[in-house]
Amino acid sequence: METFVKDEIDEFNMLKISVDNRKVGESETADDNCQKNMVENHEKVPLEDTPFSFLKSLIPMMLTDGLEEGRKRNNKVIEFVHPKELKKRLDWMEISGEGTEDSKLLDACADIIKYSVKTGHPRFCNQLFGGMDEYSLAGSWLTEVLNTSQYTYEVAPVFTIMENSIYKKLLSFVGFENGEGIFCPGGSVANIYALNIARYKRHPEIKTKGMAALEKPLVLFTSEKCHFSIKKAAILLGIGTDYVYTIKTDARGCMIPEELNKRIEEAYDNGLEPFFVNATAGTTVRGAYDPIDKIADVCKKHRLWLHVDGAWGGSALMSRTYRHYLKGIDRSDSVTWDPHKMMGAPLQCAVILTRHKDVLKQCNSACAAYLFQQDKCYDVSYDTGDMSIQCSRKVDVLKLWMLWKAKGDTGFEKDIDNAFHCSRYLAQKLKRTPGFRLLDEPQCTNVCFWYIPHSLRDQPETEEWWQKLHRVAPAIKKKMMEIGSMMIGYQPDGKYVNFFRMIVTNLDTTEEDMDFLVDEISRLGKDL
Amino acid sequence: METFVKDEIDEFNMLKISVDNRKVGESETADDNCQKNMVENHEKVPLEDTPFSFLKSLIPMMLTDGLEEGRKRNNKVIEFVHPKELKKRLDWMEISGEGTEDSKLLDACADIIKYSVKTGHPRFCNQLFGGMDEYSLAGSWLTEVLNTSQYTYEVAPVFTIMENSIYKKLLSFVGFENGEGIFCPGGSVANIYALNIARYKRHPEIKTKGMAALEKPLVLFTSEKCHFSIKKAAILLGIGTDYVYTIKTDARGCMIPEELNKRIEEAYDNGLEPFFVNATAGTTVRGAYDPIDKIADVCKKHRLWLHVDGAWGGSALMSRTYRHYLKGIDRSDSVTWDPHKMMGAPLQCAVILTRHKDVLKQCNSACAAYLFQQDKCYDVSYDTGDMSIQCSRKVDVLKLWMLWKAKGDTGFEKDIDNAFHCSRYLAQKLKRTPGFRLLDEPQCTNVCFWYIPHSLRDQPETEEWWQKLHRVAPAIKKKMMEIGSMMIGYQPDGKYVNFFRMIVTNLDTTEEDMDFLVDEISRLGKDL
Repeated sequence: METFVKDEIDEFNMLKISVDNRKVGESETADDNCQKNMVENHEKVPLEDTPFSFLKSLIPMMLTDGLEEGRKRNNKVIEFVHPKELKKRLDWMEISGEGTEDSKLLDACADIIKYSVKTGHPRFCNQLFGGMDEYSLAGSWLTEVLNTSQYTYEVAPVFTIMENSIYKKLLSFVGFENGEGIFCPGGSVANIYALNIARYKRHPEIKTKGMAALEKPLVLFTSEKCHFSIKKAAILLGIGTDYVYTIKTDARGCMIPEELNKRIEEAYDNGLEPFFVNATAGTTVRGAYDPIDKIADVCKKHRLWLHVDGAWGGSALMSRTYRHYLKGIDRSDSVTWDPHKMMGAPLQCAVILTRHKDVLKQCNSACAAYLFQQDKCYDVSYDTGDMSIQCSRKVDVLKLWMLWKAKGDTGFEKDIDNAFHCSRYLAQKLKRTPGFRLLDEPQCTNVCFWYIPHSLRDQPETEEWWQKLHRVAPAIKKKMMEIGSMMIGYQPDGKYVNFFRMIVTNLDTTEEDMDFLVDEISRLGKDL
Repeated sequence: METFVKDEIDEFNMLKISVDNRKVGESETADDNCQKNMVENHEKVPLEDTPFSFLKSLIPMMLTDGLEEGRKRNNKVIEFVHPKELKKRLDWMEISGEGTEDSKLLDACADIIKYSVKTGHPRFCNQLFGGMDEYSLAGSWLTEVLNTSQYTYEVAPVFTIMENSIYKKLLSFVGFENGEGIFCPGGSVANIYALNIARYKRHPEIKTKGMAALEKPLVLFTSEKCHFSIKKAAILLGIGTDYVYTIKTDARGCMIPEELNKRIEEAYDNGLEPFFVNATAGTTVRGAYDPIDKIADVCKKHRLWLHVDGAWGGSALMSRTYRHYLKGIDRSDSVTWDPHKMMGAPLQCAVILTRHKDVLKQCNSACAAYLFQQDKCYDVSYDTGDMSIQCSRKVDVLKLWMLWKAKGDTGFEKDIDNAFHCSRYLAQKLKRTPGFRLLDEPQCTNVCFWYIPHSLRDQPETEEWWQKLHRVAPAIKKKMMEIGSMMIGYQPDGKYVNFFRMIVTNLDTTEEDMDFLVDEISRLGKDL
């Protein structure tokens, strides 16, 4: 291995020096017996002498092809290949008896980067996550280096304190004066937690006696436009989808509180036991905000647990301009919020928050004696693992902390405001551009619209016309995937045939990206 | 920013050249319409001109202090500080309105590394995970760079194919000819899946009608020494802990099949409906393997679902010498296996495998129209998201694939064999060393033992004597934490007072590490 040229200042050596000046590894605790077997203040290995030659080979590739090239607007978002063909091209995939040499693994990594979707690209608008923040990535990488689990202070001292600090911050944005939270592997799992603690709070006997102890089936309420994880959670918890009562929404996709009230009364009439209402803050497709404040009134009247699924739209809480969409959230019992969505943290970064302090532990604890020993040498109230339905729990806090610390509240607000602004800019532009039809003014950053190709313009909008329009979005999406110029989602929704759902979640998005989207869809769809 | 010295070959430039020679970004698909708006074969940004100056500053620190220093035997495993004091020292933690400059963030990162436990250190033996494999870490970092979700082929083409390839491999090690699997955020969640699909398979109507549809309460069976996640899963699924029937174990901690049979008959007599048996392959504390083959006979007789929780001990399947511990696993219905434990992948990397093809989707599907559109331009059978209880699902496969591909099956077998060998070496050594008492010969790599200080040797073993011994392990652990020389766990278990649980999970462990452990505990405990 060649060494760095010492008499020249290169970037890496400069960095190394700044690191070397820190007294890492030096003990600050005064214990005379310390480190009898350990060399104090040992000579530190300089960077160029560290091993990890494979990792060091991969770093440049990740920084250039993975990160920098992966977010350049002129590069492809996706190098689309059909599954069977891709399998053929990734002919290095199979693992055999013998190991593989580094150069072949690096070739494989180049292929992995090439054929993976560039989700950090400003024109990746296909899902409710995307973008790439350098600080957050740094937090992710450091998390992997330190590879620990969140269950005890003993093995996660820094991250235990960091989680508590971030929960406090998130709780304050929600408006819960007290309460607690826990990071979950995704918003769906956060919703599972919400259902579980709500059920426990109502019927603590379920923990030991199960659903068999109940006289009446439990029923929960959610809008017909809610995320499908509510249904999945109801299956998992043994509630059953028949007892997920869906509530009608208005023309904008928001739950109608009067309908909620009606359905609750209907459930009572059916001999069921209502216990839980889910209000969605930012629906997946249309970005609709359910009217939380009014829903809270209904919940108060019937004494039901109010959960706000703000996985997607919760980040508006950080903006003084847009947080009004969540008015009343401080009256809820629990909140799901995914910083891996609009806040731009890498996957996975989701949290469940609740105003009910201690309910997570009361509900989920199993008191494992091997992990949560009460005779440990420190204050074991810092061991939070028994609050979780998991045992090992990945550290998801550092990437969020890093991101947030780097930006500050004001930087975050500016970014969220920009995302909302871009969606409004796009909506206005679509209204002015021939061939586009907006479904509705945006609430969250979702902009839903049809593209009407020339062949369908100025024609009577018959059933057949709508069926033709239904095939337009998939056809344009296919072209888009093959060309790789951008990725946005489409879907039907209720009475509406397939339409595009543009979402702004990449915090680097600009007005020009919105202009590009309009031009590109026009170009791809013009001959349909 | 200073640039690299061009006429000297330094490590980084050598690497850069090898990367530049790959034609990354060049399209292989022949589509004349492609990339009209995109510059073909653009000039690539050289590494030194990429942005990400913060990330590039952090890399040397991660490689030296995080990785290399973090695993040196002469360095501390932990810089222990009590929670309140640590909060004071981490005085940069709070996030304010304004952002933070890079240099301050780097200082914070240095503290984060300093006060975090070095889980890659060969003397971190505190949990069922640990060690640090360079290839696996490379896989983790690349995963973070590519930041995507596993739900659809569309956004995870490479990783969908990679998961299928790894599932096939894992299934074959279990001995399932067919079947399927899914990566989960930890073994506890894998156990939740197992319970859920077993319940669904028996009572598919539960999906819609919930547990309210059942005439009799469901009951499951597991050994008294099983992992606490089985209980947590029973709470979550609405089964209740009263219906978790625990089965007695023999002196070595293994479930007694005759006792299982008795308890199943007892449940029938109590008017309950048995449906699920959990056999543990490698219990958390003592590393006991339940006799799967005999348990399978009992399950067959009563037609019950047999799940094997091999989160910890499942990796023995990779060793021809030790896989006999799991004899009969090919007769089970589902298996939990955590590659983030003995296989050395970073957290989180866990999988649930089942012989019942399609059950995951049948049980968990909610058919979200916005995500699993059936009119997509590719074969949508590759979209696997509806099998999951999650929506976004982090990519956990790459770190495992990278690790496995680098080692090959034989390399892995050698490493697993070494871990088992070290545990046997330690057990033999403890038997020969005055002051140590082994609980039992190891099964998995857990070695459980008491250290008996001089003050307690050669004395009648009265109740009082055992109570004194109970306080020895915590006292030694406290010293160990303060000095930072090593970390191993202790706990009581049933009739046994606090004892140490040494586990070998770091694949770099050597016989000398075992010698160190014995010397260090003797040294720390000699004056007790």
